[in-house]
Amino acid sequence: MVIREFVEQDWSQVWPIIQDVIRAQETFPYDPAMTPDAAYGMWAEAPPGRTVVAADGERVLGTAKMGTNRPGPGAHVSTASFMVAADARGQGVGTALCRDALTWARHQGYAGMQFNAVVESNRSAVDLYRREGFEVVGTVPGAFRHPTLGRVGLHVMYQEF
Amino acid sequence: MVIREFVEQDWSQVWPIIQDVIRAQETFPYDPAMTPDAAYGMWAEAPPGRTVVAADGERVLGTAKMGTNRPGPGAHVSTASFMVAADARGQGVGTALCRDALTWARHQGYAGMQFNAVVESNRSAVDLYRREGFEVVGTVPGAFRHPTLGRVGLHVMYQEF
Repeated sequence: MVIREFVEQDWSQVWPIIQDVIRAQETFPYDPAMTPDAAYGMWAEAPPGRTVVAADGERVLGTAKMGTNRPGPGAHVSTASFMVAADARGQGVGTALCRDALTWARHQGYAGMQFNAVVESNRSAVDLYRREGFEVVGTVPGAFRHPTLGRVGLHVMYQEF
Repeated sequence: MVIREFVEQDWSQVWPIIQDVIRAQETFPYDPAMTPDAAYGMWAEAPPGRTVVAADGERVLGTAKMGTNRPGPGAHVSTASFMVAADARGQGVGTALCRDALTWARHQGYAGMQFNAVVESNRSAVDLYRREGFEVVGTVPGAFRHPTLGRVGLHVMYQEF
């Protein structure tokens, strides 16, 4: 598996990953009816942001986007989002994407990385981020409506570099 | 003072308020070089969001925007932002705008209201929100670069209805 910059030809494999994730409504507070065009605009980051894929040969296993979390006086903090194809989970793809994003953000000179809305019940993501150095700095109670669990919290997670 | 819906003719008074606030870089993580057009797009909310002004006769003293904090599974939580003209501060304009936003959000059926990035050193805002029922659910350390205080935290504040 290699992590490389996203190119337009990857979209035919990246969009189904995004569509699966947003339709499930279990891990991202995104519009589940998002169109492919809107998703492309949201996921394919223009510089100074960056979008990558984790690929095994021709196959895209997962994808990440990263960039500045807030403009102006907040622009020293980065953020990132990760999605892994359903049948590629549990194999370290998310960890590899997270490490790649952290390396990139450090090299860009950011002071830290913030995740704004990590679904509390998404244990594999929360555990992964903790292993990679993030802490939960706060949880907005019930801010995410999970299809089977009902209202669960959204963690804000942060790591200073 | 009345609080009423923002109309386009208010912009000549609203833009200077926004410009002052974002140029000061003390209270909002917004781009201080934001153009008037970008500011209009950011501040004048399309339905289901809403933008209001606090007016004393012809004079605009302050403004607020409010709407849904996150799409999809996060859409039951509202958010709002408030700005008051420098020479109208300390007179209850912010409190009136905050109460108006809370009333609106309750009537719209939201389950709560979240503020995503309240600058820790902005004591008058933090105290006002606390008085109106919000709690700090977490603070991202150093996430805001204040022009004189250096890096200060950004509070996430929340109120369940």
